[in-house]
Amino acid sequence: MKTNFIHTYVSVDCVVFGFDDDQLNILLVQRDVDKTGVKDLKLPGSLIYNEEDVDDAANRVLFELTGIKKMTLRQFRCFASPDRASDPDDMKWLDKAYQPNINRLITVAYLSLCKVDRKLNNISKYKQTEWCPIDRLPQMPFDHNQIVKKSLTEIRAWIERNPAVVFELLPHKFTISQLHKLYEAIYNKNIDIRNFHKKVATMSYVQPLDEKQKDVSHRAARYFKFDKKSYNRLKTSM
Amino acid sequence: MKTNFIHTYVSVDCVVFGFDDDQLNILLVQRDVDKTGVKDLKLPGSLIYNEEDVDDAANRVLFELTGIKKMTLRQFRCFASPDRASDPDDMKWLDKAYQPNINRLITVAYLSLCKVDRKLNNISKYKQTEWCPIDRLPQMPFDHNQIVKKSLTEIRAWIERNPAVVFELLPHKFTISQLHKLYEAIYNKNIDIRNFHKKVATMSYVQPLDEKQKDVSHRAARYFKFDKKSYNRLKTSM
Repeated sequence: MKTNFIHTYVSVDCVVFGFDDDQLNILLVQRDVDKTGVKDLKLPGSLIYNEEDVDDAANRVLFELTGIKKMTLRQFRCFASPDRASDPDDMKWLDKAYQPNINRLITVAYLSLCKVDRKLNNISKYKQTEWCPIDRLPQMPFDHNQIVKKSLTEIRAWIERNPAVVFELLPHKFTISQLHKLYEAIYNKNIDIRNFHKKVATMSYVQPLDEKQKDVSHRAARYFKFDKKSYNRLKTSM
Repeated sequence: MKTNFIHTYVSVDCVVFGFDDDQLNILLVQRDVDKTGVKDLKLPGSLIYNEEDVDDAANRVLFELTGIKKMTLRQFRCFASPDRASDPDDMKWLDKAYQPNINRLITVAYLSLCKVDRKLNNISKYKQTEWCPIDRLPQMPFDHNQIVKKSLTEIRAWIERNPAVVFELLPHKFTISQLHKLYEAIYNKNIDIRNFHKKVATMSYVQPLDEKQKDVSHRAARYFKFDKKSYNRLKTSM
């Protein structure tokens, strides 16, 4: 029996989803590596501090990245494969960004949601951030591609238990067509629009506004809003 | 800004649920501490090995504890409060059970399910195991009481997404009354039996057997079984 209990370093990584009216995007950061002309994008993250819980570390990372305090956040999985930080480029970057000899790094992954048109106030160590469409993600360092893949299952489970989170991806007023496209993007499949209208009709917290689209070439659609009070009442009564 | 990135130790802890026809129980182990006459029960767990992923560590803990290979297992949360291992008794035990100077310990918690009447083949470092009713849990070391509390929300979410797991808590043949009591125990509330019968009628994978209870003082109830094939067909078609 092995009795080799080593110390390890623990980080958090955040998968921040955004929706641009057409597809799901993920917020990536550019890390500084010694490769000329190579854009090296990754999930935003950080090693946890000495006196810091993992949830606090994830909140800190998102605040430094966006300027938004208390973003909706959900821890979803710890990734701890022994070789997840064994790529020489990744080890070199860890040396430079944190400290030398980080021979084992375990990460706790979080889901979050953000409107893509929101102005971000980035004060993090990452110089550049960008929204990247989920179906055109680059090859990322560590196991970040695997983390994103897993996060897609998780965001569905999250929405099924807590449908309110969907509306954090939409503008305050939205059309049913936008909501429909968002559900299609999250489930990555076509959803019959008539059945979808029936489904929305059962959501008492999706409420029509006295306002329609303006300056559109097609027939102007009505705007709707998410009514948090109705939602909370419904949730309490269940 | 703090830049103190320390190394830490990582463990796994397992909340194993069992159902004894009346209430939910959790499998606890007795740890060896220098307190005379004090029973010190905790969740089964272990520090992870050098070359071990957290899922593998949880499988190892459960195998050593029960002799069962590949128990159904679900990672549910990382607990990382900076002071979770700061109690002097807990620090003393860590020194003895593992190695000195474990100043920060983060744990990844797992859910599992086991039939309470199953004979366990315990080859773990813990001498004694016992099933403890969920409403009579002792004060446990570290944050184990908090982990159990959180696990109750998690087992509900797990069952809602994957109803098959419920049947791992029941004998191979069971009555609707047993299934009803199990749901009441999991949700910790009374569930109307007539509505419950209607609900079960919609579960095509809960199938009646040509067999009834014997030697019972009340009217003998029919036995049912969980049909995995029907369940999987239904799941694939959804």
